[in-house]
Amino acid sequence: MVKKSSAEWHGCPIRYGGAIFGDIWSLLILRDIMFKDARHYADFLNAGEGISTNILASRLSKLEAEGILTKAQDPGNKARYLYGLTDKGKGLVPVLLEIMCWSETWDDQTEVPKDFARALKEDRAALVKNTIAKL
Amino acid sequence: MVKKSSAEWHGCPIRYGGAIFGDIWSLLILRDIMFKDARHYADFLNAGEGISTNILASRLSKLEAEGILTKAQDPGNKARYLYGLTDKGKGLVPVLLEIMCWSETWDDQTEVPKDFARALKEDRAALVKNTIAKL
Repeated sequence: MVKKSSAEWHGCPIRYGGAIFGDIWSLLILRDIMFKDARHYADFLNAGEGISTNILASRLSKLEAEGILTKAQDPGNKARYLYGLTDKGKGLVPVLLEIMCWSETWDDQTEVPKDFARALKEDRAALVKNTIAKL
Repeated sequence: MVKKSSAEWHGCPIRYGGAIFGDIWSLLILRDIMFKDARHYADFLNAGEGISTNILASRLSKLEAEGILTKAQDPGNKARYLYGLTDKGKGLVPVLLEIMCWSETWDDQTEVPKDFARALKEDRAALVKNTIAKL
């Protein structure tokens, strides 16, 4: 068993990723921007999950600070901000697809469409590529 | 954009997975049992992350209740429990591997060995299979 002292905080890939997006709200924000076309604050707020405004604002700020999300004035409405994914954020598509694949297998109330689940298992690389191309 | 009311709580694969293992401590427990041979309570407690005993106990119980971990009396020492992964838990190996792959790309302090990262990119299916075979 690899032993690491707590002094060696850096370098572990699960800790690194987990510290950035390893919480339910960050995962739902990533879901909404990747798969539900959420682009504005209100889209995330009204995604039906009951996220509070302060948690949403703090998660969006954190994901922006970590280089996952971009935030820019919306050219169509200067009073609003438009959120997007950086390349680092788009790089999380395979992580979310794997979670979807796992849930499709184990959640007996899954709403993952069968053809999506099949594409995930049979031609994963193409699905990753196509999903990222749409972002 | 797909709109879902909060009344439709079930079915979303990201919410399902996120609710079970979408927190930093659960991810670290999964890391330790998958990749660091952690089998006993003390292994998780002493993994160097500074997890408190009450958080560790609650996360282990939750992961057991969700069908991710098994818990049984250790045949070698009846005063101890031995933790293991169910098939549902082993099914999370690809999720953790994807997080590792992403961190290897984006964390400039990554400790993911280059040959592991290469195997992850070049023959992912074999790496998933070999990792699960060792559990």
